[in-house]
Amino acid sequence: MGSNLRVDGTRLVSRLMALAAIGATPEGGCRRLALTDEDRQGRDWLVAEMTALGLAVKIDAIGNIVGILKGREEGPAVILGSHIDTVGTGGRYDGALGVVAGVEVLATLRDAGLVPKRDLAVIAFTNEEGARFHPDMLGSYVWAGGMSVEAAHAEQDSDGAVLGTELRRIGYEGPERPGFLPAHAYLELHIEQGPVLENEGGGLGAVTGIQAICWLELTLKGRPSHAGTTPMAYRKDPGLAAARINLYANDLTRAIPGQLANSGVIRVQPANVNVVPETVVMTLDLRNPDDARLAQAEAAVRSYCAALAARDGIEIAFRDLARFPATPFTESLIATVEESAAELGLPIRRMISGAGHDAQMMSRICPTAMVFIPSIGGLSHNPAEFSTEYDIAAGANVLLNAAWRVANA
Amino acid sequence: MGSNLRVDGTRLVSRLMALAAIGATPEGGCRRLALTDEDRQGRDWLVAEMTALGLAVKIDAIGNIVGILKGREEGPAVILGSHIDTVGTGGRYDGALGVVAGVEVLATLRDAGLVPKRDLAVIAFTNEEGARFHPDMLGSYVWAGGMSVEAAHAEQDSDGAVLGTELRRIGYEGPERPGFLPAHAYLELHIEQGPVLENEGGGLGAVTGIQAICWLELTLKGRPSHAGTTPMAYRKDPGLAAARINLYANDLTRAIPGQLANSGVIRVQPANVNVVPETVVMTLDLRNPDDARLAQAEAAVRSYCAALAARDGIEIAFRDLARFPATPFTESLIATVEESAAELGLPIRRMISGAGHDAQMMSRICPTAMVFIPSIGGLSHNPAEFSTEYDIAAGANVLLNAAWRVANA
Repeated sequence: MGSNLRVDGTRLVSRLMALAAIGATPEGGCRRLALTDEDRQGRDWLVAEMTALGLAVKIDAIGNIVGILKGREEGPAVILGSHIDTVGTGGRYDGALGVVAGVEVLATLRDAGLVPKRDLAVIAFTNEEGARFHPDMLGSYVWAGGMSVEAAHAEQDSDGAVLGTELRRIGYEGPERPGFLPAHAYLELHIEQGPVLENEGGGLGAVTGIQAICWLELTLKGRPSHAGTTPMAYRKDPGLAAARINLYANDLTRAIPGQLANSGVIRVQPANVNVVPETVVMTLDLRNPDDARLAQAEAAVRSYCAALAARDGIEIAFRDLARFPATPFTESLIATVEESAAELGLPIRRMISGAGHDAQMMSRICPTAMVFIPSIGGLSHNPAEFSTEYDIAAGANVLLNAAWRVANA
Repeated sequence: MGSNLRVDGTRLVSRLMALAAIGATPEGGCRRLALTDEDRQGRDWLVAEMTALGLAVKIDAIGNIVGILKGREEGPAVILGSHIDTVGTGGRYDGALGVVAGVEVLATLRDAGLVPKRDLAVIAFTNEEGARFHPDMLGSYVWAGGMSVEAAHAEQDSDGAVLGTELRRIGYEGPERPGFLPAHAYLELHIEQGPVLENEGGGLGAVTGIQAICWLELTLKGRPSHAGTTPMAYRKDPGLAAARINLYANDLTRAIPGQLANSGVIRVQPANVNVVPETVVMTLDLRNPDDARLAQAEAAVRSYCAALAARDGIEIAFRDLARFPATPFTESLIATVEESAAELGLPIRRMISGAGHDAQMMSRICPTAMVFIPSIGGLSHNPAEFSTEYDIAAGANVLLNAAWRVANA
């Protein structure tokens, strides 16, 4: 295509802002929970945009929206995608960027009269956030064959609304079989949702994969007692044990390369100033790009807890909340992303994705890679989520260049 | 009176169980919240018992019930007392023991035809627990002149019920002025509510005073961030800071003699597995029998928090929830309690009270001491609260002996 072809950054951002106006919140963010009326309006907007570009628009049985630019030859398509649902207090860029940039890439090619060898498609996957229906990444999971349409349709939100019913209610249960479009490769542009790129001087990220995750819930039982009348030696305080576990998990992040740890939930019962706690429920979110190192961290936590429980007379029960192995992306496609950025003179660094993305599911069925752009202040899932037009255009141009390369290889 | 006079332990326990039947809970405990219908029934029972013994029964304007055995001479009375209200999930002994044992002491003297030199009275103070109306120890606080009747009447429970209205509703706004009976001395028998006596081989406690209390609420503000995408070095986690503060306060209990510490409340926001907390609200309950040592502990906590806040980029705000200096009881009266036990061949040890009691308020206006009996398992404010008939009788006999000594001195 020649390295001088570029997306229209201004048009791309105004498309993003048009989508962001749907479900806009007073704080400047977006609330477009999956399969709500706001999601329906966002979908209607996207379908209209795709249709206006002359794309073939298809909807599958789980509501994934697919816009296809036909290539010169028959065969598997190069798929660009992400999602347009948001969390309850979401921003304007998470997910929407990847879908709208995909549309912009196809619009740029069409405007230039360029037809790739392979089909090029954009997919907006249903319910990526998991904020309304479990699991997250549901649409891409079903697309990749990891979950049946029937099982997905049966999922209920916290108010008991059934996914399949909601899908029909908003008119997005389509006739296509999820996965109907064979995939040659999958590319996703996304905001980083973290502070690394900004703090390392800007530039883009060539995502090498998604780190492994282990979510644990620990229930610690001690013995409730009066904080005034019970000498320290007689107490069995699960609150102190929880504090030690939190700090131990934090220490592991210095001892084990790549290790992250967070205790985001700590619930104390009975929660009176003058009562030594009886029970503490706490969570640990442990992540590592390396499966073996994550296993090492988890084993260390469990071993520490066993010793602590024995020493302090506390019972500690573990429950798995989530567990995903590391998802490495495809080396040749990561290299293509790097080469595409280099050709455009854009700085890019390899990095792991800390969060899950639809690319994680698509990597089950085809070569996959992602491009990250900086998130200002590292903010995401936050109305103040922001990325600059410069970075948005840069990311979309890498997506354009990489997609063109793969679609013609 | 001769050291062979004894209370009737079986009668005392059956009186306790008769009172415990009022507001009895399926778990074997008691729910007689202040100024409820259950409290009224308990009061009616007590007034009937006092009347049957031939005591002069008087009710004051805050609902304190006073039963008086006239002595041979005019002058200030020796007062025995405690309370018959309970917490929501209370037991059968906390408070009730001191009132019912006082009645048993007067019954024993009357049965033996013994008339003391001074008046001997039993008082059941209103709303000691503070479980329904603030502050706790309200009836004795008003009796001792620390709070006006008007202010006390204006207190509201969490449902907006007004104390004065409730007092009139149950028929216990009496004509007497609180404190109308001048006090020569105050003696209170109570369960320990802790495990010390039981774990030290049983025996009684001669209470030397009530320890100083400092209740602090700390609000820690950090920066919420994604637990997958935010490197550890970029986080400002108030949950980790709270853990460090809890452990630091616990360390102080080994560094400062007599120091107790508890973090009973820990509330984390936003409380998501994968979000580094933004805010933690935690409480610290710090106690020490010595005011200076408690001040040292509090200063150490504040200094530690200041350094931690600066190092970790966390904001930490302090709020005082409660603060009481130590209340030493009267040495001569503590000695009388010890001598009374020794005369009866009962082992007794000096100890501090970890919790507040009506004696704390009465010590403002007269010489005061307390007797503790063991709480099995250290349990209190719990349906399983229990003390043996042997210990109950032993405690009541010490109360009888000490009251007789003081009433004739």
